[in-house]
Amino acid sequence: MRFDATELRYDDRGLIPAIAQDAESGEVLMLAWMNAEAVSRTLETGRVTYWSRSRQSFWVKGETSGHLQHLVEMRYDCDRDCLLVLVRQEGPACHTGRRSCFYSAVRGGEVVEIIAPE
Amino acid sequence: MRFDATELRYDDRGLIPAIAQDAESGEVLMLAWMNAEAVSRTLETGRVTYWSRSRQSFWVKGETSGHLQHLVEMRYDCDRDCLLVLVRQEGPACHTGRRSCFYSAVRGGEVVEIIAPE
Repeated sequence: MRFDATELRYDDRGLIPAIAQDAESGEVLMLAWMNAEAVSRTLETGRVTYWSRSRQSFWVKGETSGHLQHLVEMRYDCDRDCLLVLVRQEGPACHTGRRSCFYSAVRGGEVVEIIAPE
Repeated sequence: MRFDATELRYDDRGLIPAIAQDAESGEVLMLAWMNAEAVSRTLETGRVTYWSRSRQSFWVKGETSGHLQHLVEMRYDCDRDCLLVLVRQEGPACHTGRRSCFYSAVRGGEVVEIIAPE
């Protein structure tokens, strides 16, 4: 079956959440959003491209920071309403300089920072 | 710092996306949604509890199927608008009987099923 980006299920803003996972380590790096055009651009260019909700524009991850995400594989879930993008991440994925955005853990009711900036 | 579920950032429906990842293998299993009460219940009970958007009710994952998700650790991202729950998954996470919901991959423009039902 040919893949058709328009057949994914987008929310009422036309967006679908995309989980970025390091293809090698398995680490979950971040979650951002794509519209159908961002999905197509990601597949065509091999550079993971999101839709920035704050800026209301396409966002080629790393375009300004140099911390590009190279697409290794795109997957989607049983409901077709969530993407998993396996990536090769250049530099840190998080704008705070950490390799993953998920650096805050809840342990014994306390917030613990588990990843330091690189 | 004490963790306070109400200080996460929820969308206009009062929900936050939660990525479930197998704590041992690193496999991303599914994405579902929580409200603040579901976050608190997950931490209190150790059983991952979502908010079902279709049923508009709490959804203790595996409560009917037996395929429980035991919480290993809850993390959240730099924007406080996404959760990552590391879990010990009993049985398949997906309602299709597959261990992960992300069993469809896009390869060379074609959709390939990469995980079979257990």
